[in-house]
Amino acid sequence: MTESLDSTRLAAWRAYVESSQLLLTQLEDDLRASSRLTMADYHVLVLLSEAPGQRLRMGELAGRLVFSPSRLTYQISSMQRRGLVSREPCPEDRRGSEAVLTATGLLTLRDAAPHHLASVRAHLMDDLDDDEVACLARVFARLGARLRATRDAATPTTR
Amino acid sequence: MTESLDSTRLAAWRAYVESSQLLLTQLEDDLRASSRLTMADYHVLVLLSEAPGQRLRMGELAGRLVFSPSRLTYQISSMQRRGLVSREPCPEDRRGSEAVLTATGLLTLRDAAPHHLASVRAHLMDDLDDDEVACLARVFARLGARLRATRDAATPTTR
Repeated sequence: MTESLDSTRLAAWRAYVESSQLLLTQLEDDLRASSRLTMADYHVLVLLSEAPGQRLRMGELAGRLVFSPSRLTYQISSMQRRGLVSREPCPEDRRGSEAVLTATGLLTLRDAAPHHLASVRAHLMDDLDDDEVACLARVFARLGARLRATRDAATPTTR
Repeated sequence: MTESLDSTRLAAWRAYVESSQLLLTQLEDDLRASSRLTMADYHVLVLLSEAPGQRLRMGELAGRLVFSPSRLTYQISSMQRRGLVSREPCPEDRRGSEAVLTATGLLTLRDAAPHHLASVRAHLMDDLDDDEVACLARVFARLGARLRATRDAATPTTR
C-alpha cells in the first residue's frame, strides 16, 4: 500500500500530518480557554486586521482561508452575532459583499494575540533551533506558493 | 501583537499553518475524487488496518485521531453505514466498544492508498530534498511525542 512513497518519506509524512493535528487541537483548546475564539475566528481577525481598510471581499476571504463559500458564510454569521465583524455591500460590485472588522473585533484580536502566540511558542517554536525554523519557513513558503498557483490556475475567478 | 514571537519565527509559523491548510484541502479534494473518502475516513482505515486484529477500542481511536468522543461516534457511524467498519462490544469490558475493520474497509483502503500517496508525493514530497525530509521527520516526531506526553499527563484514562 506504500509503493508510491519510500519509507523515509512516508514516516516524515505521517509524523507531520499526525503531529500537526495534535498541535492545532492543542492551540485551539488554549485559544478557546484564553479568548473564547476558535482558530478560524482568530485567522479571520488577523486577515481583516492586515487588509486595507480592515475589510475583504467574501470571495477573497474564502480563498485566503481555504473555505467553501457556505462555510465562510456560516463562519462570518457566527462572528457577526458576537460583534467581531460586520458585513457590507461592495462599493464597486452590488452583488458582492465584504466582511469588515469592527472595533470590538480589533480589540478582541489584540487581547487574544499575546496568549495565542505564547501558546505557539510553548508548543512548537521554543523547541526548534534556527536551522529548523529556516527549514520550516523555506519548505512551507514554497509549498504555499505552489498550491496557490495550482488552485488559481484551476479556478479562475474575478477576485 | 507579535511581541512574544520574533519575526523570523512568526513568518515560519504562518507559512506552516497556512500552507498546511492548503495542502490538507488539496489532498482531501483528491481523495474524494479518486476514492470517495475524507481524510478522516482514510486515517481511521489506516489505524484499524495496522492494529492487532484490525480493531481498536473507541477511546483509543479517539485519542489517536485527536477526536472528541462525540465526533468519533459520528465518524464511525458514517463509516458503518458505508460498510467500512463495524462496531462490537469489547470482550474484556462490556461497557466499552471497539471499531473493527471490515473486508470492504480493507479493500477500500487498498484501492485508495496508491492514489492518496501519489497525491502526497505530487503536492509535497517530490519537492523536498533529503535534508528537508529529515528536518520535517525530526521536528514533527519530537513535537508529536511532546504533545502526546502533555495530553496523557493531563487526561489519565484507562486506555
